[in-house]
Amino acid sequence: MQDKDWFTHSIPLPDQKSGKAALERQATLTKPVGSLGKLETLAAHLAAMQGAIRPQSSPLGIAVFTGDHGVAKEGISAFPQEVTEQMVLNFLSGGAAISVLAKRAKAQLCIVNAGTTRRDAYPEPVIDRPVGYGTRNFLEESAMTMEETLTALVLGRSVMDEYLTQCQIVIGGEMGIGNTTCASALAAALGVATASDLAGPGTGLDEQGVSHKQSVIEKSLARIGSQSDPLRILTELGGYEVAALAGFYIRASMLGVTVIVDGFISSVAAMVACKLNPDTRAWMLFAHTSQEPGHSRVLQALQAEPLLSLGMRLGEGSGAAVAYDLIDAACELHNKMATFGEAGVSDRV
Amino acid sequence: MQDKDWFTHSIPLPDQKSGKAALERQATLTKPVGSLGKLETLAAHLAAMQGAIRPQSSPLGIAVFTGDHGVAKEGISAFPQEVTEQMVLNFLSGGAAISVLAKRAKAQLCIVNAGTTRRDAYPEPVIDRPVGYGTRNFLEESAMTMEETLTALVLGRSVMDEYLTQCQIVIGGEMGIGNTTCASALAAALGVATASDLAGPGTGLDEQGVSHKQSVIEKSLARIGSQSDPLRILTELGGYEVAALAGFYIRASMLGVTVIVDGFISSVAAMVACKLNPDTRAWMLFAHTSQEPGHSRVLQALQAEPLLSLGMRLGEGSGAAVAYDLIDAACELHNKMATFGEAGVSDRV
Repeated sequence: MQDKDWFTHSIPLPDQKSGKAALERQATLTKPVGSLGKLETLAAHLAAMQGAIRPQSSPLGIAVFTGDHGVAKEGISAFPQEVTEQMVLNFLSGGAAISVLAKRAKAQLCIVNAGTTRRDAYPEPVIDRPVGYGTRNFLEESAMTMEETLTALVLGRSVMDEYLTQCQIVIGGEMGIGNTTCASALAAALGVATASDLAGPGTGLDEQGVSHKQSVIEKSLARIGSQSDPLRILTELGGYEVAALAGFYIRASMLGVTVIVDGFISSVAAMVACKLNPDTRAWMLFAHTSQEPGHSRVLQALQAEPLLSLGMRLGEGSGAAVAYDLIDAACELHNKMATFGEAGVSDRV
Repeated sequence: MQDKDWFTHSIPLPDQKSGKAALERQATLTKPVGSLGKLETLAAHLAAMQGAIRPQSSPLGIAVFTGDHGVAKEGISAFPQEVTEQMVLNFLSGGAAISVLAKRAKAQLCIVNAGTTRRDAYPEPVIDRPVGYGTRNFLEESAMTMEETLTALVLGRSVMDEYLTQCQIVIGGEMGIGNTTCASALAAALGVATASDLAGPGTGLDEQGVSHKQSVIEKSLARIGSQSDPLRILTELGGYEVAALAGFYIRASMLGVTVIVDGFISSVAAMVACKLNPDTRAWMLFAHTSQEPGHSRVLQALQAEPLLSLGMRLGEGSGAAVAYDLIDAACELHNKMATFGEAGVSDRV
């Protein structure tokens, strides 16, 4: 790694002039001004990000980062750890939700092994670059070494650079048994709320399970003590896939590519990215409010106004892939509707 | 018209057995149960409506009913009446929001003249069957005759029967300068809420305009007095396009075709349809909560839980066409995801 601080480098800001010009175009289209609601502001937002009055919604790229978590041995998930590896293979064979949604959206799908417990190589085309074979149990020790954290951030950057630079929009997804515990701990350590506000059922814990998960998080937070350095917090409590996602978001922003942030874990990764480099926030759209109770708190901390609220809580980038349809519709309307002048329609009296 | 009471005839109910079987399938797919939120219940709802464990989201049909309103001469709209006719031509040439969205959704689009003020024939392929040339001003007299109401209901039925019987899902849209005033008056007369709760800015009235609109509605309600017969209320305060929409919804239900209800005016037409034949409610999905303030009250009265809330308020069926994407995604996920067994993924511990 030549440049350890790459993620702090300057990020361009969206072009407000193009955004304003796009809003002006919206006002000439054959509909009452503002009547397409968020679809109008979305189109203008994309216009600003692309520096073009008529923004494009494709190509779309999706990268799903997977990793395992040492804390899983504390029994904080409704599913066994082997499911992470099994789901990588399910992403590959097209049976997972994100596989179906990626195909439907004509998106390029990158499946990234950022560090699952599997020692054997994954079949092609998995991008098989494990930072480790599962993190350590953060209840007892630091989940990652600083070296691993930096490697995972670079992995996210590399996926963006090697596979998705031609994209106008990217989605980062994640899969990893135990990663709502990891994300809740990270959000708590980053000051969003308490462990009890952030710990939720994840893949389906009952009340007792949530209470146990909360206690594991609280003990882990006590172990690391008060911390303010986001890189240190990420190293202590993070996951390979979460750190890779943060690197992915930051790199997309540096390249001026729009990011659609998915659910709870992705939003925590987005928050980590914003802590490492605040200008990355300007390139993020937020897809949905998930059912996971901590998510709305993280969204609030990010001042995010998500597009959807469908009670989803799957991860993988699935909520973002569903929200992508709205962004695509917003672009189509913006670019293809006639103006009052073109259509010979009278404007307001 | 051979059978004046056609709209009261029996409507089949969705097949709960297929709905239950679809939910059982959802529980076997490679994701935590319930983690796709409303997309899971949507798929099951469609399965029940289609009597098939694997429901289809296409073909989709969209019918936009247009008509003019005598009450427009009271100055209750931000746009002049000629815009109704101009928009019919804009639907035709592909420049309107619903034109763009219909093409994007690969939907068949029927543009129906239910009664605009234009005396000349519209160009093909407009379905040009005006019930009249604009309704009468309901501030002064009944907007329609009972004969016209019945004719407009049949028009909606005919559009369904002649053009869209092969559809799995249909959307009814509307366009007509003055029709938020019409819809607000209808909703008030049907007991949803008071005129002041229901009258809103429509295409863009200012506060004073809304207040005037409210007063026009109140005077019209006073003129007709207390009424309980929905057909009589529709005749007094309705519009050709609103009555046609109601007939369209009822006929779709009779044929077992799913209806996606759009915004404020469409929801009032849906309410009229439900008053005329309550079983039609079982075939309705609700797309979104619009920005028009009366809409949420109408939705509440219909016990509807819409999919989206994007601040849209355009009509034409546009919100329903955007929500269609979610329904399509729900079907794709339901039909194409792998089961735990197929993918070799472990279920819960």
